[in-house]
Amino acid sequence: MDYYEASMRMHREHRGKLEVTSKVSVSTRDDLATAYTPGVAQPCIAIAEHPDEAYSLTIKANTVAVVSDGSAVLGLGNIGGLASLPVMEGKAVLFKEFGGVDAFPICLDTQDVDEIVETVKRIAPTFGGINLEDISAPRCFEIERRLKTELGIPVFHDDQHGTAVVVSAAVINSFRLLGKPLGEVRAVISGAGAAGAAVVKMLRAIGMNDIVVCDSKGIISKGRLAEFGEDKLELLALTNRDDLSGGLAEAVRDRDLFIGVSAPRVLSGDMVRTMTRESVIFAMSNPEPEIVPGIACDAGARVVGTGRSDFPNQINNVLVFPGIFKGALASRAADITEDMKVAAAYALAGLVSDEELCEDYVIPPAFKPGIADVIADAVAVAWRSRPTPS
Amino acid sequence: MDYYEASMRMHREHRGKLEVTSKVSVSTRDDLATAYTPGVAQPCIAIAEHPDEAYSLTIKANTVAVVSDGSAVLGLGNIGGLASLPVMEGKAVLFKEFGGVDAFPICLDTQDVDEIVETVKRIAPTFGGINLEDISAPRCFEIERRLKTELGIPVFHDDQHGTAVVVSAAVINSFRLLGKPLGEVRAVISGAGAAGAAVVKMLRAIGMNDIVVCDSKGIISKGRLAEFGEDKLELLALTNRDDLSGGLAEAVRDRDLFIGVSAPRVLSGDMVRTMTRESVIFAMSNPEPEIVPGIACDAGARVVGTGRSDFPNQINNVLVFPGIFKGALASRAADITEDMKVAAAYALAGLVSDEELCEDYVIPPAFKPGIADVIADAVAVAWRSRPTPS
Repeated sequence: MDYYEASMRMHREHRGKLEVTSKVSVSTRDDLATAYTPGVAQPCIAIAEHPDEAYSLTIKANTVAVVSDGSAVLGLGNIGGLASLPVMEGKAVLFKEFGGVDAFPICLDTQDVDEIVETVKRIAPTFGGINLEDISAPRCFEIERRLKTELGIPVFHDDQHGTAVVVSAAVINSFRLLGKPLGEVRAVISGAGAAGAAVVKMLRAIGMNDIVVCDSKGIISKGRLAEFGEDKLELLALTNRDDLSGGLAEAVRDRDLFIGVSAPRVLSGDMVRTMTRESVIFAMSNPEPEIVPGIACDAGARVVGTGRSDFPNQINNVLVFPGIFKGALASRAADITEDMKVAAAYALAGLVSDEELCEDYVIPPAFKPGIADVIADAVAVAWRSRPTPS
Repeated sequence: MDYYEASMRMHREHRGKLEVTSKVSVSTRDDLATAYTPGVAQPCIAIAEHPDEAYSLTIKANTVAVVSDGSAVLGLGNIGGLASLPVMEGKAVLFKEFGGVDAFPICLDTQDVDEIVETVKRIAPTFGGINLEDISAPRCFEIERRLKTELGIPVFHDDQHGTAVVVSAAVINSFRLLGKPLGEVRAVISGAGAAGAAVVKMLRAIGMNDIVVCDSKGIISKGRLAEFGEDKLELLALTNRDDLSGGLAEAVRDRDLFIGVSAPRVLSGDMVRTMTRESVIFAMSNPEPEIVPGIACDAGARVVGTGRSDFPNQINNVLVFPGIFKGALASRAADITEDMKVAAAYALAGLVSDEELCEDYVIPPAFKPGIADVIADAVAVAWRSRPTPS
């Protein structure tokens, strides 16, 4: 099937994919006077007196903004806000179809960090949460950090954390299958961009201490300090405890786990042969992974996953973002914390039973029913039992 | 029926009135690959190459932002963006139910004119039009003027122009009933705020030259020049050709038409008796009109309308804004011009047949089917035949 042509047809036929519909009927004068003037004055007054009532009386309760400046869209690069709209509409469709969350695309006509932060803050009253999407690194780090601090609602950059949570669930289940404690796993990550950084933090949060990261120039190590900006310095502080140096070939040697968020075909079969026996490989460069699954298996890998739906173990963000926001909204969370992400990863991993768990099934498929609800419940519990409630 | 209590119940039960739903089914892997990655890359590329394609491939084709800073909400005053959300949701419901236009509320966390203009411009890529709502005067004038100039999509402050178009349709039909040419009608307007100014411009556009405006201090006249800001100076230039002065009592004498967009009970029966025989009165202060219809009729008025649904001739903006935006979007208009508003007024007036036309029926009721389509067609023709196409 030619998805590109089919997609053009679908978009042209419907002129976009979203619709804004009414949950209430407005077919009589009484309806009109209840949904609109004069009756609507009453909920307005209630919110003016108690702003929290917005969560009981308006769409803020269940509505997320999907915000993008179009600076890093799919593999297309910087195509701008307007051209990113089909992706942001698609994201909103997935929020609704998979999580029952209402989401609306906000495509920005600016790529300035200050202006983006300012704009999102100014339009925040309508929304219960902000999903940042396809914003290039390192700008995405500052935008997310500032919005998390300055807004009192959940903010989540899905390209970073969605990916990190899903792959963490797959990692948890891979070593559950292999019977190896996560604290003993030695990991290598190819890719030091937004997703790579988020993956490092999640792996540490689930108990891994021995992680090495490679960017396109080699291992993130002390010898390269001079060339690093703030974000790579932070990565260095979290990884490479044995001060390794060299390229990806050196980095993968004797590692149990490879996670690729980088570029096609950077991992060879020969490199996989230098990893430990029964290694675990998630090669998520899309559409062309860091290594073709067949080559990885032939070279001795035990579990292999990619971002693609035509291979086993698809690492697909749609497995988590609908449930994470659903849980955050349900618990009126003011933030999406590390604990909530860890809870989501374990909840997702737990959806694969002992009987189901095998090399080709370490992560459930996107269409397995009920995933968002299970994740939402775990996320809500994690928020409610946070160590220091505000 | 207690609309206030019913409205609280409705809002609490549904947690707001809007829902964002998908127009396409996403229940298989193929669906996912068509609506989202990888297929969605194709419409993105098409828009990046030809930005106009956004109108064929995305929700921009049929989506309006309902923007408010909550500075002048209903009769509640300045309650802020968040508390205005129930009204803006209601407006979006009406856009959809009456015009088939998708609309989404953008409630702002700023009341600064520059920041509002800036913010709307930055979020404009998603939208095909901007409906400004419940923004206080005189700020609303500058915001609308700047957005009309700086954005290439239709911008419409409904509190001003929606009201002006509907009342103009009612005025056209009133004098059609009375057999008096509009050029001979002598009009008085009570209220020099946002709606009053828009009404003046519409009345001039439909051919009236003799208009007097009163604010709370009396007739807008040369003798008061010293106290006027920019907007009242503009009003003065458009009205009071005979340089009348005094209060409302002096202003209404020998007038054929009274339009009230001011305050309850400012017009007395005695004042109506000084108007011409068979005068026409639209008293739109809401919920309490400038004069109770029965008093006006007893004093000799022939046609009386209000903003209320429990009297004949309800001047209700829902009669026009859905159709105006529907027509503007359908014709890909870059603006909503004076001609388009005039076309809407005549189209609405034309929906009352010669047989139907009478004192109590100069304007159709909101629920008469097909109104938005008729207005949309007229508005689209007015745009397409504009004098100087860009």
